[in-house]
Amino acid sequence: MKGNLVVGQSGGPTAVINNSLVGVIHEAMQHKDVDGIYGMLHGIVGVLEENFVDLRQESEETLQGLRHTPASALGTVRYKVTDEDYDRLIEVLQAYDIRYFFYIGGNDSMDTTHKIHLAAQKKGYELVAIGVPKTIDNDLVKTDHCPGYGSAARFVASAIRNSGWDTEAMGDSGPLKLMEIMGRNAGWLTASAALAKQQPKDPPHLIYLPERGRSLEQIVEDVEETYEKYGTCVIAVSEGFRDDEGREFGTLGDSFETDAFGHKRKGGVASTLTSALQQHLDMLPRFDKPGYLQRSFGELASPVDREEAYNVGRTAVRAALEGKMDQMVALVRQPGSEYEIDTALVDLDEVANKERLMPDEFINEEGNWVTQAFLDYARPLIGPPLPPYTRLEKHPVPERAKVKSS
Amino acid sequence: MKGNLVVGQSGGPTAVINNSLVGVIHEAMQHKDVDGIYGMLHGIVGVLEENFVDLRQESEETLQGLRHTPASALGTVRYKVTDEDYDRLIEVLQAYDIRYFFYIGGNDSMDTTHKIHLAAQKKGYELVAIGVPKTIDNDLVKTDHCPGYGSAARFVASAIRNSGWDTEAMGDSGPLKLMEIMGRNAGWLTASAALAKQQPKDPPHLIYLPERGRSLEQIVEDVEETYEKYGTCVIAVSEGFRDDEGREFGTLGDSFETDAFGHKRKGGVASTLTSALQQHLDMLPRFDKPGYLQRSFGELASPVDREEAYNVGRTAVRAALEGKMDQMVALVRQPGSEYEIDTALVDLDEVANKERLMPDEFINEEGNWVTQAFLDYARPLIGPPLPPYTRLEKHPVPERAKVKSS
Repeated sequence: MKGNLVVGQSGGPTAVINNSLVGVIHEAMQHKDVDGIYGMLHGIVGVLEENFVDLRQESEETLQGLRHTPASALGTVRYKVTDEDYDRLIEVLQAYDIRYFFYIGGNDSMDTTHKIHLAAQKKGYELVAIGVPKTIDNDLVKTDHCPGYGSAARFVASAIRNSGWDTEAMGDSGPLKLMEIMGRNAGWLTASAALAKQQPKDPPHLIYLPERGRSLEQIVEDVEETYEKYGTCVIAVSEGFRDDEGREFGTLGDSFETDAFGHKRKGGVASTLTSALQQHLDMLPRFDKPGYLQRSFGELASPVDREEAYNVGRTAVRAALEGKMDQMVALVRQPGSEYEIDTALVDLDEVANKERLMPDEFINEEGNWVTQAFLDYARPLIGPPLPPYTRLEKHPVPERAKVKSS
Repeated sequence: MKGNLVVGQSGGPTAVINNSLVGVIHEAMQHKDVDGIYGMLHGIVGVLEENFVDLRQESEETLQGLRHTPASALGTVRYKVTDEDYDRLIEVLQAYDIRYFFYIGGNDSMDTTHKIHLAAQKKGYELVAIGVPKTIDNDLVKTDHCPGYGSAARFVASAIRNSGWDTEAMGDSGPLKLMEIMGRNAGWLTASAALAKQQPKDPPHLIYLPERGRSLEQIVEDVEETYEKYGTCVIAVSEGFRDDEGREFGTLGDSFETDAFGHKRKGGVASTLTSALQQHLDMLPRFDKPGYLQRSFGELASPVDREEAYNVGRTAVRAALEGKMDQMVALVRQPGSEYEIDTALVDLDEVANKERLMPDEFINEEGNWVTQAFLDYARPLIGPPLPPYTRLEKHPVPERAKVKSS
């Protein structure tokens, strides 16, 4: 089918989402059925408002530059498409003779893509809509992992390692630290903090995931036990972490807002837990909240992630030109000891609005750390190992007893 | 003078403070007057409690590893030395035949080092005490800049660039962001955010320093003006930023604590300003608070900073062995277009407890940005330029009028 192509980016940006965009453009250029290659500005709102840019006019230098530029080059959006919007969307796509529609995003975006497919069918307009996965939350079903996750995981592991070594250096001047990590209901990104640890005494020491609730009393016990063992305690805690009664810690202390999709905006867990722990322990905990750095930190993008993000973009276009539609590109890990990834296609309606939480086999029994199976899963995604850090061996100088007692 | 040497690290760690430690050790090994090379664990408390380690027993491999390891390898401390402590300190140093004392730290540590010199003199104990500068705040007087600052500045520039490009991509789904940056009363680190900007539209757009107060009304005007011009507004704001009546924004909304030195622990400015701006603007601002990452982020350490931190350590030992005492090593920028740094020695009592704020010529008239003179000052300190980021050229696709109006 001959016609124009449009591609858009949606939801939270990532450090590598532009690779998927460039993958789409590069592959589209290879197919003579594709005439115009358009970008929608700020996702689906760009279609509604007819804000399209001509991506064929971009230089190869720009495209190569984008492969190392974080955030969404076309702009992104958080906008819940209404039923009326779908009529308008098809009308616009039709007017611009757009026959290929690619949307790079998470589960909300997969839902939008699926509904655009349905709306086009209903109107009898021939349109191929394909979803390109992206989310640092890693919570899309039917794919081994999501482009964007590996880079965010690399940043999180690095952030908690750096801040955790700082905490260790502080000793009793500040031995306890929490780091609050993104991920609505899924603990994937928080769990990646475990990749910072090389030796048992290395930070982090505890990982609290939304998949497991824990009472404040248990948390205090965890912290005391860790402090006794290592003289320090560094905790990775998910923004969506709950107590044993299922109440989100982040909502216990602070008011919270709701985004356009009805998701609660969480963010108070580290500050709530810091206050609570201070009341139960004889020390003042510090906390870090790396916030938007988790999804944008270009310097720590994972090379593996960058390549995979590019490949899912290319694969989406190839699939569309082969006649596939209403599907999402998925990543499939090949069996064997070497990390190897293939792509596959899965039905959009099996992905749309679903959420993949961490499975039980990735979380330890106590619910405060990850398993070896998770480490094996996550390690290849962040690229090369973090650069090694070194401790002094600390050979003691013999004491001069005469002054020791004074 | 023959005898043992001791070195310690104090105050907040940095990404390169271990380079100063290794510099001291490497240089000390060159001098046959130096017998034992000891490290005090957790700064001056390590002397009071006689917790010394034998640094001669560390391998060269460990020392080289430390040159790329952030945080304080000997451990650090926040402890205000009392008058009684000084007697005990000299007593311990004497018992261990320590004749050379090196303290790596900021202005509090320079004060401690100077007082140890005085206490030794008073007791008639021959001791050479030398201060080795370190602080991400860059607020020590009598030195062009402080080791630790360049690396923190590189991280801050990178952090606000990454998070700021993310904000730009969000468009009207989230066009306004604040980033809260460390630095008690001095704006040096906040100002370094300006190094993220290559083109006028690049983030950040506004910089608010503790050296200049600004009313909420003025801030709202700044934000509106920027948003109208660029469709986005990214602000670097110092934790110590004040309003036009001198009240710290960070203390207006939140309670705050005091550390052992009587410094207020600030931290609420971004959250206070976010709430305040939300009330005055029709948009919800986001904020980031990179916290301890600013002083610990090993992957973004500046190579220039690393080298200079190492050199001040070496210089301190050379000076001590040449008979200098009661001094701090300072960095002196050489005149000329190429960046070139030399070292000098300055009296500790001229540095102790003093604070260097940003001079007027580094801040613009409006008090919401830095001058070219500051950029010229700061740019060489962060090492090579940040890797380039790329924008699409965004050639518009001609509108199809028939659907535009629907």
